[in-house]
Amino acid sequence: MLHIVIPAGGSGTRLWPLSRACHPKFLQPLSGTPASLLQSTVSRIAPVTTPEATYIVTGTAHAAAVARQLPFLPEANIIVEPSAKDSCGAIGLAAALIARRDPQALMGAFSADHIVRDERRFVECVHTGVAAAQDGRMVVFGIVPTYPETGYGYVECAGLVGTGPIRRVTRFKEKPNADQAGEYVRSGRYYWNASMFLWRVDVFLAELHRQQPALHDGLVEIAAAWDTPDRQQVTDRVWPALPRISVDVAVMEGAAAAGRVVAVPADFGWTDVGDFHALGEALTGGGDANAVIDGTGAGDAATEGVPKPPVLLEECERVVLAPRSGRVVAALGLHDVIIVDTPDVLLVCERSRAQEVKRLVNRLAADGHDAYL
Amino acid sequence: MLHIVIPAGGSGTRLWPLSRACHPKFLQPLSGTPASLLQSTVSRIAPVTTPEATYIVTGTAHAAAVARQLPFLPEANIIVEPSAKDSCGAIGLAAALIARRDPQALMGAFSADHIVRDERRFVECVHTGVAAAQDGRMVVFGIVPTYPETGYGYVECAGLVGTGPIRRVTRFKEKPNADQAGEYVRSGRYYWNASMFLWRVDVFLAELHRQQPALHDGLVEIAAAWDTPDRQQVTDRVWPALPRISVDVAVMEGAAAAGRVVAVPADFGWTDVGDFHALGEALTGGGDANAVIDGTGAGDAATEGVPKPPVLLEECERVVLAPRSGRVVAALGLHDVIIVDTPDVLLVCERSRAQEVKRLVNRLAADGHDAYL
Repeated sequence: MLHIVIPAGGSGTRLWPLSRACHPKFLQPLSGTPASLLQSTVSRIAPVTTPEATYIVTGTAHAAAVARQLPFLPEANIIVEPSAKDSCGAIGLAAALIARRDPQALMGAFSADHIVRDERRFVECVHTGVAAAQDGRMVVFGIVPTYPETGYGYVECAGLVGTGPIRRVTRFKEKPNADQAGEYVRSGRYYWNASMFLWRVDVFLAELHRQQPALHDGLVEIAAAWDTPDRQQVTDRVWPALPRISVDVAVMEGAAAAGRVVAVPADFGWTDVGDFHALGEALTGGGDANAVIDGTGAGDAATEGVPKPPVLLEECERVVLAPRSGRVVAALGLHDVIIVDTPDVLLVCERSRAQEVKRLVNRLAADGHDAYL
Repeated sequence: MLHIVIPAGGSGTRLWPLSRACHPKFLQPLSGTPASLLQSTVSRIAPVTTPEATYIVTGTAHAAAVARQLPFLPEANIIVEPSAKDSCGAIGLAAALIARRDPQALMGAFSADHIVRDERRFVECVHTGVAAAQDGRMVVFGIVPTYPETGYGYVECAGLVGTGPIRRVTRFKEKPNADQAGEYVRSGRYYWNASMFLWRVDVFLAELHRQQPALHDGLVEIAAAWDTPDRQQVTDRVWPALPRISVDVAVMEGAAAAGRVVAVPADFGWTDVGDFHALGEALTGGGDANAVIDGTGAGDAATEGVPKPPVLLEECERVVLAPRSGRVVAALGLHDVIIVDTPDVLLVCERSRAQEVKRLVNRLAADGHDAYL
């Protein structure tokens, strides 16, 4: 039995105004189908697990939406964090809860807001990871880099384990500068770190205990009280004091240094949909086509039931358009422009500036326009 | 007493979706103030006439809106055409009605949907025209061309009349091709024909009678019945059969050939606001500044009472933006883009393609989306 934990957090500021503080990226249909990214993630992992072994860890603000988007998941599998403690809080709590029932369970962790183009290849990679994790290794899925991205962390690898394809991980690297990124990609020894992991929960908890004993002990204490009348009281007391730290920094870097981490090279067409440009690339494969993101999913409450009026793109190239207001959208002679049309906000942005969308959000926040964030 | 007639017709398809069949250009605030183009026109001519001598000729669809935008005009001065008969029907009917009360009245005709930057100079030009018209000449205001526009008609001039600045008009020219337009501008003998006229109504009606006797007789018959119980019956019988023709073709070309037309060179910063590019030029004077058309006038029913949320233009140049939906508009890194944001339609268009906006309208019409036209 493979348990899958899906941390569902982060608002995706660079996808504003589609993504909002109250309606984040993972709840939205961005993959070209009516499914939200969260729903797509759950359906992607379905071939390797069951609903009973699928867990979502999310914040208080989004628990209800998650529950409604995934009606087939047991209620107990929707784990609601009292406050955000970065990925180690979310993943660690899930690991402690799983370990309580099955101390040597295999557990994978996959973000709720990524796109994977080749789902069959994804499943193959997970199977490869399972084999390595059963032996006690901690697995990171290393995305084979297609260009020298400076916005991601990397994992540095040494030789193959046995006959491969698994490789030993020597180090986790923070986001590089452009020169470093170029070297990384040329060397063939680096992968993008997409924070996708697989391990036995006993192995993970042992590493957590070794490197972050306070966090480990707090999570285990909460897990022990989870199904008892003391859950609320213990959680209220313990959770707020836990350190806020990512699983990469808290556990994986130290585990790699100790020789316990391997990478499964992952070439399944991954993107983190970081901004509208990346979303356009993911949907079109990078050509001159326009990307129209008009999916209306169960979670896209803002446009549910709104009729779809015409969308005209006349002599446009590489336009990324999200028509989400129920209005006519007519564009003429545009290239490399992002248009996001929502009921209360319109964004129009040159495509090369997609990463800077958060500047607009910051500006609105500074001016007190919280209703639009 | 100078009577001023303002034909208010035409939907302004190239200004879609601001301008609609049911909410045309002249009813909209496009001049950078809350006044509609019609209101701006009436206020521009106020120094040379009175409300009692100001007439609007409009269609049945817009009579009510015109009456409300100009509450100080006498009701009888809002002349409603039963059907569109081009400019000679509108102007000729007004001339016949004015002549009934004052057979030698001076009458000027100015479109309802143009912008004039220098209103003081405009008044000076009108005074110059009045002097010439009192002598029995027919005056056209010839816009001094600033570039070889191929979208306008021209008037060809010979020498000065007396010491000037008035010049004899030898010919009215249809829209030229690019080569011809270049020659026209270089020669210094051509002006843009903006269909702005001034004449004594007896002189105009005599020319109309000479060149278009059926149209003349029909209009005079309707005017004779206008203030009698027979008005409706006479209008119903006579109006539908009148020819549909412009005043330029029906009267002015022939009058010029007969040596009866003079031009007042007009350099008062005129634009016909033909499309969003021209509108941007008129509002910014042609520099790199962005043009934000956010005026909310009495006639702009669609946005009346809607609050004004923030508009952000970050690192944008030469953007023409009409934020008319009450939504936030945020733009980043754009140049030479037109954004028109209305409650039911969003247009985004490369600025050099502004003249082609009507293609989108035609496409929607062909697809049966009449609600958005």
